[in-house]
Amino acid sequence: MRTDLERFFNPRAIAIIGASRDLVTISGQPLKHLTSHHYKGRLYPVNPRYQDIAGVKCYASIADLPEAPDLVLVLVNASRVAGILRQCGAKGVPYAIIFSSGFSEVGGGGVSLQQELAAIAREHDIGVIGPNCQGMINVADGVFAGFGSVFHNDYEPGVVSMVSQSGGFGFSVMNLSSKDGGLAFRQIVTTGNEIGVSALDFISYYIRDPNTEIIVGYIEGLKDARRLVEIGNKALASGKPILMWKVGNTEQGQKAAVSHTANLGGAMALYKAAFRQAGIIQVEDIQDVIDYGRAFRCGRLPRGSRLAIITISGGAGILMTDECIGRGMRLAELAPETLAKLREFVPSFGSLLNPVDVTAAIFNDTSLINRTLQAIADDPNVDCVAMITASLQGEFAATIAAEIVAVAGKTDKPVLLAWSARDADALEAYGMLNDARIPHYKSPVRCGRSLAALSWYAQAKRRSEARRAEVALTLNRPDAKRALAEKTADVSEHAAKRILAEYGISVTQEELATGKEQALAVARRIGYPVALKVQSPDISHKTEARAVKLSIASDEELAASYEEILVNARAYNKDAKIEGVLVQEMAKGGVEAILGVTNDPLFGPAVMFGLGGIFAEVLKDVAFRLVPITPSVARDMIEEIKGYPVLAGARGRAPADVEALADAIVRLSALAVDLEAEVAELDINPLFVMDKGKGVKAADALIRPRKK
Amino acid sequence: MRTDLERFFNPRAIAIIGASRDLVTISGQPLKHLTSHHYKGRLYPVNPRYQDIAGVKCYASIADLPEAPDLVLVLVNASRVAGILRQCGAKGVPYAIIFSSGFSEVGGGGVSLQQELAAIAREHDIGVIGPNCQGMINVADGVFAGFGSVFHNDYEPGVVSMVSQSGGFGFSVMNLSSKDGGLAFRQIVTTGNEIGVSALDFISYYIRDPNTEIIVGYIEGLKDARRLVEIGNKALASGKPILMWKVGNTEQGQKAAVSHTANLGGAMALYKAAFRQAGIIQVEDIQDVIDYGRAFRCGRLPRGSRLAIITISGGAGILMTDECIGRGMRLAELAPETLAKLREFVPSFGSLLNPVDVTAAIFNDTSLINRTLQAIADDPNVDCVAMITASLQGEFAATIAAEIVAVAGKTDKPVLLAWSARDADALEAYGMLNDARIPHYKSPVRCGRSLAALSWYAQAKRRSEARRAEVALTLNRPDAKRALAEKTADVSEHAAKRILAEYGISVTQEELATGKEQALAVARRIGYPVALKVQSPDISHKTEARAVKLSIASDEELAASYEEILVNARAYNKDAKIEGVLVQEMAKGGVEAILGVTNDPLFGPAVMFGLGGIFAEVLKDVAFRLVPITPSVARDMIEEIKGYPVLAGARGRAPADVEALADAIVRLSALAVDLEAEVAELDINPLFVMDKGKGVKAADALIRPRKK
Repeated sequence: MRTDLERFFNPRAIAIIGASRDLVTISGQPLKHLTSHHYKGRLYPVNPRYQDIAGVKCYASIADLPEAPDLVLVLVNASRVAGILRQCGAKGVPYAIIFSSGFSEVGGGGVSLQQELAAIAREHDIGVIGPNCQGMINVADGVFAGFGSVFHNDYEPGVVSMVSQSGGFGFSVMNLSSKDGGLAFRQIVTTGNEIGVSALDFISYYIRDPNTEIIVGYIEGLKDARRLVEIGNKALASGKPILMWKVGNTEQGQKAAVSHTANLGGAMALYKAAFRQAGIIQVEDIQDVIDYGRAFRCGRLPRGSRLAIITISGGAGILMTDECIGRGMRLAELAPETLAKLREFVPSFGSLLNPVDVTAAIFNDTSLINRTLQAIADDPNVDCVAMITASLQGEFAATIAAEIVAVAGKTDKPVLLAWSARDADALEAYGMLNDARIPHYKSPVRCGRSLAALSWYAQAKRRSEARRAEVALTLNRPDAKRALAEKTADVSEHAAKRILAEYGISVTQEELATGKEQALAVARRIGYPVALKVQSPDISHKTEARAVKLSIASDEELAASYEEILVNARAYNKDAKIEGVLVQEMAKGGVEAILGVTNDPLFGPAVMFGLGGIFAEVLKDVAFRLVPITPSVARDMIEEIKGYPVLAGARGRAPADVEALADAIVRLSALAVDLEAEVAELDINPLFVMDKGKGVKAADALIRPRKK
Repeated sequence: MRTDLERFFNPRAIAIIGASRDLVTISGQPLKHLTSHHYKGRLYPVNPRYQDIAGVKCYASIADLPEAPDLVLVLVNASRVAGILRQCGAKGVPYAIIFSSGFSEVGGGGVSLQQELAAIAREHDIGVIGPNCQGMINVADGVFAGFGSVFHNDYEPGVVSMVSQSGGFGFSVMNLSSKDGGLAFRQIVTTGNEIGVSALDFISYYIRDPNTEIIVGYIEGLKDARRLVEIGNKALASGKPILMWKVGNTEQGQKAAVSHTANLGGAMALYKAAFRQAGIIQVEDIQDVIDYGRAFRCGRLPRGSRLAIITISGGAGILMTDECIGRGMRLAELAPETLAKLREFVPSFGSLLNPVDVTAAIFNDTSLINRTLQAIADDPNVDCVAMITASLQGEFAATIAAEIVAVAGKTDKPVLLAWSARDADALEAYGMLNDARIPHYKSPVRCGRSLAALSWYAQAKRRSEARRAEVALTLNRPDAKRALAEKTADVSEHAAKRILAEYGISVTQEELATGKEQALAVARRIGYPVALKVQSPDISHKTEARAVKLSIASDEELAASYEEILVNARAYNKDAKIEGVLVQEMAKGGVEAILGVTNDPLFGPAVMFGLGGIFAEVLKDVAFRLVPITPSVARDMIEEIKGYPVLAGARGRAPADVEALADAIVRLSALAVDLEAEVAELDINPLFVMDKGKGVKAADALIRPRKK
């Protein structure tokens, strides 16, 4: 499929199929917008009913066109789109935007219509955008190929490029950001149902596009989600931040899943994991795009997360502190030399502790601000600076702004301002700051969030660079592959753990017994206490079936329990195929964790980690990562969960063997990669994480093979 | 102290102490602002160096003034303020704003200076505002008594009144809200260090003020915090929403506390509890005030939380759904009659499922929007309506707005709009909406949050009304009071549980033994298994001291354990006074919870509830409420924690006795009220919550008495 896209954004000729003479309607608008924004290529309205539309020559059909246009806009009724697309194919058209609605979004017949379109596009190698979309604007080159209110407006070209699966919302982001937000856009395309060129194709293109500096995405769902992490890391390497919405977050989990891992997963957990692994900045609102975009436009990234705040309003300083600390930054501890310098001029009723409060005394001494800023920007303990100037306005503001611009130009650390004056009251000051690309925000909260976004992104970039130095563990276990390939039913504990062991994950000492005498012999060999567990591919939840006995201390107890759990298992499912009874050492001590694999149809395999029992199941305190997982990612994953202090040694416990846990995660990732074709879901529950240096041990496991 | 405040906001005469002729400086600005905004009362600058300032007659001292002004502005150096305040007292001045800095905010000598001011104010009954503040603006009456950039601007008077402990930030909120935000302010006062009239005094006044409809607060901390719940409930009854910042949230807990309850508490937990109990809407940013304020200005509250969304952009509908569901609302299920009506005109490629998507087809048929809105507003299953009109602009927008205004006028349900056009592109449409008080927002996210704020407030109002029908349990236990009054050391388990029992909280069956033989006799009477616990006022954490043995099954085991734990206790603290060994039934089954009381110096007593162990201590998943706690508040508290599903019956467990738990909370609240003078901290840890109908049982407890 075509993804070279330069011709799409900059077509030499455009045909408009179903162009209407009523320029207010959807099919009338594109011709109007293209001409009124001075599109420089050739325009071919196609409609057999007209000789011309608004003075532009009209053609009866695509076949009649004097050339194959680079781009065709399709504005006809859904039922006619397939025919049009075939004609495009015959003519050799490379790109078509299908605006028409009435496809998969309406279900039923729309779904098969859409499949037909996809097949035609593939057959003729047409790069299709849509259907059910609102088109594209290439501001930089004046190509307004679509419809909607925002097409009426003119825009300054900028360096932000966006792809949106929603037309109405996407264009509103562009309109509000470019005009009032001060963040001008370069290109925007809306992709609707995405049967052809996908949102990720466009993002890949923007990464390559030398004129795009910031990428914005609005996505409801990605059919090619497994490309997300790789593309995100390419963007990180290119230094282009991706700001992205992922919406539709209130959906329910997959109800049919058997494992905890799959139940706790679902699309949102995997998107969240991918965003983190790929340094993609999740946004919630339009203002986030404007604010973060302006922060990134300054072209500076902090080297660390140590923030210094200078304020003339104590309250605003506290607000910003709350915001930044709550988002992972910390307040810089100023160097003694800095404090000595500050002591010379900050008033005695101000504060030298970070946030440095120079107070309203600046009304009496305007030099306070730039002297303080200079001293702080020079401090080696400071990675970035926020300055809060409250509501200064008019000439006074312009004086202050000029001094800030001068000082900020002498450092390469990000300097962001919280400046609450209205635009109308600080035109000159804001103009100077804009020219110097110093980001400024109306509220300390917005400023703090933007700083935190810069800092988070810089950290993701550092993490990504560190990761590139790591090699992901690869394991190849043909025996395990073969053993699993034959399975159609759930693989019970003993067999599942043998597979884990093949990938180097420690499991409990155990043996499968098929008779009571054998069980007794095994128990004596392992040593009491032991656990007994009925093994059956038809009983996935053994505890629920009362087919498990723990802490068996003697031969007598074992003999009685052996009978009992078999009776229970048969009562639970009289047709269950019983493979035998597993005799197992009692794992004890350590922290109970849960590890798992879910093999998502869109994302591919992902590994889950959480603490056992209530932590994972009630509080859903788990972390996911997409494979392959390197050691640094595994550690990041372990530290992400709220229950992490339990592993680190909370409540007087010894620290757990986090290193062995990270190794088990890396090995499980290697398993998930190797067995992607065979494993649908996998649970290790519990995995005992022993005290530091003592390793981990899988005490129970379950594998659900992919259905054949 | 004076809290009648009408004269403060509307003074007949104002004196300015330390007035400067340099009208740019802090001490020069107030005179300039008062005159330029046409203050209608009499103005007396006071400065012995001048005959007049800017044409206004200047006086040498307060004593020289021809009358006692209603308000004095004090702008002199900190060291001179006490003297000035005494002169105010002598003259009979009722209100003084002290702008000067250099008091408690700088520590050291500033603290004692401030105490001196407070004493003078009390002695002369002067209502002091400040020190370290920026003054007041009464927009409605043109009184601009303060300094700062925003004092230069003119404002339309509105119905929002604000009190802020921060000058710079508070005035920026007023400036941005009133001018560009479309939410005009009536009055704003900044209170700084608050030695006299407090933020809550001003809020109480605003509740009484017939011209204030919406109250905004910015607070860093309240010295009179225990009034918060009562004042909040008065505001709820008056129908005036309070929108409030509580900042300074990154502080650490009190390190010296002995109980888990006090360690988990700290100011923020209690503010959060108070806000919830009082229906105070917490805001994070200036835009929240503007957005929520505009929502409340519509004068309508939803009767429930069932939301219907009408959209012309599917994507924006999803965004709003995420936002509203995530904040406790739910999507209304439309009535069959509504669906039948909609089917008549919504295009087949639209969606009738809520969110109802009428699609971009509105460009071809403008009547789609109002017909849909009418049908949905009439639906009895719908409590409020959000309409998303994307970026419609110009004349087209005006047509749509006129129709929306007409339909919205025929319902009393809130109708909020997400309308993304720029102000400049939809002047006429927005003007019509503003006139009709239909709130509109640039983004579906902001609209969704505002709707959720309306809905949350309406629910808090309903809860408050329900609570007024309840009577808080009152218990009076003079014996317990007397027993505790004598204590200075921590009260150990047995004694603490006897006190709990007096308030009707079930405790484990137990007896204190002072010798091994007695312990054996008690154990046989109670029945094995039992627990043994050394009792000492000097050992608060018995488990840490290994002075506890659980699940003792026999006489032999008891005899050995008895010796062992006494040896351990002495090894832990050789000077510990040992009261004896507690022989106790082993509480078993049920869910482990933790209850507690913390007696906060500012808020008074609060009760904490959480699930036991890691839930409370690592995840900090606990809920606080200020006393007195009625049964409905206790239930709300239980349902607030994330671990609630464990009580409700997660993981195949039987539901726990939530009713008995709520009763225990109510009784603990009654205890906390009765013993407020005696109890500093109290922990019940664990409290076993048995299966439904089987009650609760306190298995361990600790009381720290208030230091004498």
